Formats: sequence, structure tokens, C-alpha cells
Amino acid sequence: MRSHRLALFVLLNAGVIGFVGQVPVAAQPPAGAARSGRRPAAVRSPQILADHRVTFQLRAPKATEVVVAGQWPNGRAPMTKDANEVWTVTAGPIPAGVWEYSFQVDGVQMIDPGNPAIKPMREPRTSILHIPGEPPLPHDFQNVPHGTVRQHTYLSKSLGRLRELVVYTPPGYDKQTDARFPTLYLQHGMGDNQATWVVHGKAHWILDNLIAQGKAQPLVVVMMDGHASIAQGMAGFQNNTTAFERDLIEDVMPFVEANYRVKTDAADRAIAGLSMGGGQSLTIGLNHLDRFAWVAGFSSAVPAREVIAGFLNDSAVANAKLKLLWIGIGKDDFLLKQNETFIATLKEKNIRHEWHLTDGSHSWPVWRLYLADLAPKLFQ
Amino acid sequence: MRSHRLALFVLLNAGVIGFVGQVPVAAQPPAGAARSGRRPAAVRSPQILADHRVTFQLRAPKATEVVVAGQWPNGRAPMTKDANEVWTVTAGPIPAGVWEYSFQVDGVQMIDPGNPAIKPMREPRTSILHIPGEPPLPHDFQNVPHGTVRQHTYLSKSLGRLRELVVYTPPGYDKQTDARFPTLYLQHGMGDNQATWVVHGKAHWILDNLIAQGKAQPLVVVMMDGHASIAQGMAGFQNNTTAFERDLIEDVMPFVEANYRVKTDAADRAIAGLSMGGGQSLTIGLNHLDRFAWVAGFSSAVPAREVIAGFLNDSAVANAKLKLLWIGIGKDDFLLKQNETFIATLKEKNIRHEWHLTDGSHSWPVWRLYLADLAPKLFQ
Repeated sequence: MRSHRLALFVLLNAGVIGFVGQVPVAAQPPAGAARSGRRPAAVRSPQILADHRVTFQLRAPKATEVVVAGQWPNGRAPMTKDANEVWTVTAGPIPAGVWEYSFQVDGVQMIDPGNPAIKPMREPRTSILHIPGEPPLPHDFQNVPHGTVRQHTYLSKSLGRLRELVVYTPPGYDKQTDARFPTLYLQHGMGDNQATWVVHGKAHWILDNLIAQGKAQPLVVVMMDGHASIAQGMAGFQNNTTAFERDLIEDVMPFVEANYRVKTDAADRAIAGLSMGGGQSLTIGLNHLDRFAWVAGFSSAVPAREVIAGFLNDSAVANAKLKLLWIGIGKDDFLLKQNETFIATLKEKNIRHEWHLTDGSHSWPVWRLYLADLAPKLFQ
Repeated sequence: MRSHRLALFVLLNAGVIGFVGQVPVAAQPPAGAARSGRRPAAVRSPQILADHRVTFQLRAPKATEVVVAGQWPNGRAPMTKDANEVWTVTAGPIPAGVWEYSFQVDGVQMIDPGNPAIKPMREPRTSILHIPGEPPLPHDFQNVPHGTVRQHTYLSKSLGRLRELVVYTPPGYDKQTDARFPTLYLQHGMGDNQATWVVHGKAHWILDNLIAQGKAQPLVVVMMDGHASIAQGMAGFQNNTTAFERDLIEDVMPFVEANYRVKTDAADRAIAGLSMGGGQSLTIGLNHLDRFAWVAGFSSAVPAREVIAGFLNDSAVANAKLKLLWIGIGKDDFLLKQNETFIATLKEKNIRHEWHLTDGSHSWPVWRLYLADLAPKLFQ
């Protein structure tokens, strides 16, 4: 039987696992490798070396140009083709962080197919390179009690179709069956989906670490799919916040409050988001101060004045009901100007707020820091 | 402020969301589109049409050959390039099912970057096309009570590194705080990872449906990463089941039994898996009848005789302790012969078992049916 095991190994490694029905969709081996039993040169990507240089590889025999484009400093590097038709480059050293990168193969942007860590996006073309820090960074997994990330599919009555939902419960949630927890509704950006704040943003580890340090209250975090409107183009964009608000208030909040042990006062609910999700959070939060006393926008597509006119025109109510209005953006962000205008409006109306003008661009390294700044201020 | 919103929309749609640090990694638009504000022709893929034909699209201006290779019948189709440099084909009608497909771009196999549904794999090159049935199929989401899928990252003491774990809890688990549940440890195949049984196998919906129909007992399902050995090549394959067994018994079972309300008798534990995971399940299950009374192998890489010699050589003990030994494989599976040999051995030893020789190849449509056959037999 030993020979059977060997045969299986060769078959599996030669791409037979890539069988799709009767059509062999070989993974990386050249055609015929499965039949001949020859294994092509191994392609491993990414390989993080001891000195934090990183080797990227892709087999693409017919390509004329392959580039790795990474988020780390000086992250763009041409790859060169070796004798085995494998394109390779060793980049860096790359600093510790959670970095995005793509391959550009004759101009087609794609994930690194050697890397199972993919940034969850509506159009997935981006891989994740996570280099933990020493000592660990605020978003790194640390040896502390950990919460749980839960996935649900629900039939949204307000939208009439299946939707996905991700919920973080804090360490101890399952054991403390008498306790109820405050809730943060946390939105992603336009390219992302409900999984991005965990898989790429590391929201769960950021919160685990802050809770372990006694800096943040244990809380439940609800992460929806921000794309509520099916309509494409401008009409879709304009209608999306409205559709998202309905799904949040009519479907998701009732679902969460029926299925999780959460507190239901406005003082125990926060809403925050980034970019498009910052616009959603500011629009919905500031129009529903009876539901959310904590509102935050990260690098937000800020709402038009008329969309939050009720809020802006009664600053006494706003200041009485809001526990915190947190606004942050990086100096190099293309949405800086509209956020500065928004802050000027808040000042003009004498509405209390925190304004965080930070280093950075419209990117996840900034948003991870914003969550780490915001979370300790919530529900205190 | 309306104009700000419009400007944001144009920027976001022109690929600025693809910014990676200071390096603009445009998604699909040609270079310069972000600056000029021109939007390229929309690429939407896949689009399921009313008659169940499906349109696939990819922008790849420099490619000379693009093919879609799908798991559905006659699933290979060349794509043609239109005036906008978008490769397109409309395939089908495609029958209801959860199908795998890839693009082959000048010989490079890749996911469809227009489709966020990606089959979780060690080398992700495969997208998912899910066409629900009417009436719904056993693996389709139906309007019944639903369980929850939970994700954990744990530091494996036995392996000395971070690992991922997925756990399904049945409908009502959180509310029935006095109840304890039986547990199925469910393994994936060599190309897959801990997420594949849910994201692609739809194990959670298969079980939700069977439980709602009163056919299966409510149960907890534990899905580990089957790749426990870091070593590459033959040594890695030989050592992997041993490393996996240690992680299962020393780390994961204690974790699950400390953090979930599960029963801990052998009669309340099952172990099952497919292909490589079938080999793991048979090896570990049959060597640990004190821990697992229910053992199943789907299209298994069956263990060598000497690996389970203790089990084979004491059929009285085997038949006394085993509640069920379930073996299944498709007639077109390349592992058929070794499974037939395994069954002959069981017969020779007079060890009770169920033998399911079915239609099908080494593929997920078979494994979804096997789970639906097995689950109602467990813990009854």
C-alpha cells in the first residue's frame, strides 16, 4: 500500500486535485505534467526570509512583463523570468505590517495565486502579506484571551435577498451568560465587503489586545455588507446609503438584538466606518441619535449638508445626545478637503467633536490605527 | 456638497480605491483613467441570465488567448475580445449547482477577479458559481433556522504556530444553554483549507436543512486546517497525518471541549473527511476508537494496512466499538482502486462497514451528497 500512497502524492502534486469535472484545470504545472508524472519546479509565494526580505513567484510562461505592486515603501518591483518560466523577485526588507499587494501580468492585476490570504473585495485582485512585529503590533495576534468571529447569512426582508453578516463577540462572551454587551456597527469601504474588517483590518485582534490591556470595554462588533443597492452607477451610489439604512435598522439590528446578548440603549450603541462606510455611519448615526450615541467617520465620504440638516440645525439636541463624534483623516487622503469642510460646519454649528488630522493616505494602515484610537473611548 | 459626492463616486469608480500606499494599483481601468475621469466600459462577471446562461468577462488587453474552464457539463469555452479589450463568453444554460471555474489567460490559471466568491485553497485559482435550484437543492440556503459559522485563530502548542479553525454550531445552540451536542470533526482535501467545507462545500446549509427536516441530530462540526506539517514534498506528506493527529488530539479537541457545549463520549464524536482528509479521518478514527465511534472516508486516500494494523487485527474490538464505518467513492474517481482494496480488506477481516460506490468523480458535487447521506446516520 505504500506505493499507493506515493502514487497519490505524485498525482495530487501534479495538479490532479485541480480536476474540474472531466476538464483537468491544472494548477501551475505545464500541460502534460500530470500524465508524465514529472513535477514542475516548485513555485512558492510569498516566502518571508529571515531578514524580512520577501520572495514573490509566479509561473507565467507566455507573459512579457510581470510586476509586483505592494503597499510597503517602494513597493513596486519588476519580476524576472528564470529558466523554469517562473517570474521571481526578492523585495525589501519589508517592515512589519499587514500589507496589500498584487501581481500585474501584462497589465492584468491579479492576486498572488500562491497565497491563500486574499483581501476580501468585490473585485478580488489583492493579496495580503502579514509580517508580524517584534514586539507584536496592535493588530497582531497576541497570547491573550480571544473573541470569536461569527458568520451569518440572512434573508433581508427590506432588500429581498440573501446577505452576509460578520459578528465579533469578545473574549468570555460565551461563558458570561448573564452579561450584556455594548455594540459597535462597523462599516467597510467601497471596494470591500463584510469580511474585510476582520480578514484584512484585523479588527478582532485589535479589540482582543485592547480588551486584554483593560483599555477597551468588551463589546460586540457587527460588520455588514455595505453594498445594499443592486443598482449600478450613479443611481446605485445615491440610493445605497438609504437601502443600507433600511437593512441595518429593519433587519440587522433586530437580528443582532434577538440573537446576541447586547444592550439596546443608544448609549450602548456605536456606529463607525471608513470611506464610503464613513459616509454611511455619519449619515445614519447623526440622523438617528436616538439609536446611536457614539458616531465615527474614518477618511469619510462625508454626507451632504442637506442629508443631515436635522442634526446640524439643532446643536443643543446633538450635544445632549452625542457621547462622541469622532472624525479622522490622513493628510495625504484625497477626501481631506471635504472632511475639513465638514469640520468647519461642525464648528460653525458649535457641535462637539474630536478631529484627528493624522499622517497617512486613504489606506488600511490608517484605519487600523483609527479603530485602535476609537475603541478605548467607546462606552466609557 | 452634491458635487463632492459626485466627484467621490467618479474617483472611486475610476480605481482610486485600488490605491496601494503611494502606488496606484488600478483595478480594471487602463492607466490614466483615474486622472482623466473617463470610466472604462464596465466589466461584470459572472452575470447569471434569466435562462441560466452565464456571461463571463475579463479585461486583458494584451492577452492572446483567454478561456473559461468550468466544472459544469461542457464547461470549457474560449472567450473572445471585444472592441473594449474585454474578453467575453456567454456559456450554458448551466444547471443549478455550486460549480468551480477558472480563467486561463495565456495559460495562467486564475480566479475571476469580478467575482468575490473564491474557493478557499492553498493556491487560490478557482472561483465559485452558485446557481440555486428551484426547488432548492440540499446544499442551498433555505428559509429554515440557521446555525452559526465561527472562526478561531489558535496557537497550537503541538505545532508551535498559529492555526485557523472553523466551527459550525447548530440552530438554537446559543439559546439552549443547558444542552450539550455531539461533534463531527470534518476534514478537507489536499488543495483546500479549513474554510472550504463551508464556503464551497456548503456544509452549514446542508446541515441546517437536514436538521430542519428532522433528519439529522443537531451537532457541532469542527473544521481544521488539514495541513499540519510545514515540511514540503514527500517527507511532508508522510508526516502530515501524524502532525495533524497531534494538533487534533492535543490542541483542538481540548479547545473545542473547553469552549463549546459538546458531549465527550466516543459515541458522541464522529470523524470524516475527503481525499487527503479521508485518509486522515480513517487513520486517526480507526486508531482511536476510544475517541471516535463514527468514522467516514469520502473518496479517501486510504491508509496503508500497517498504519491501522491494530484496528484490522482485532475485528471483535472494532465491531464492538464502531457505530458506523462509512466508505464512499465515485465510479470515475482516480482513487477507486485503492478504496476497493480497502473494502476487500475490511471484508476479509469481517469488519462491519457501509460501502457506497456512487456516480461521480473526485469532486465537490460528490462530497456534498456524501455529507448529506452521512449526517442523518450519525448519533442516532
